[in-house]
Amino acid sequence: MTNATYQVKGMTCGHCVNSVSTEISGIAGVSDVQVDLASGRVTVTSAAPLDPATVRAAVDEAGYDLADA
Amino acid sequence: MTNATYQVKGMTCGHCVNSVSTEISGIAGVSDVQVDLASGRVTVTSAAPLDPATVRAAVDEAGYDLADA
Repeated sequence: MTNATYQVKGMTCGHCVNSVSTEISGIAGVSDVQVDLASGRVTVTSAAPLDPATVRAAVDEAGYDLADA
Repeated sequence: MTNATYQVKGMTCGHCVNSVSTEISGIAGVSDVQVDLASGRVTVTSAAPLDPATVRAAVDEAGYDLADA
């Protein structure tokens, strides 16, 4: 198990949180996604480290952007 | 056909707009709902005038509040 934290821009409400969470949860190997709306911080638990590009694509698919690290 | 405009508080994104629109669209006799996210203004077209309490209940069900008129 590994955890990684990402910063997502533009989430404004619980629906945004759900959209991001749903998309990231769909990535193979992801077992948990925790989103903090106030901070935009998204913590992803996965079986193995994820390709950041995959996470970025999922966030984009949900309609949001990853902040540049 | 009649139009009425309501002021909804707390919508922050397109998902919020969809939630409010879906709930109000479910009221009997409603044929169109237009939501302006920026202003919070919701214009409802219906076959006959609606009971404001019904609209208030639908907005509440969506998770938002009508501003006091």
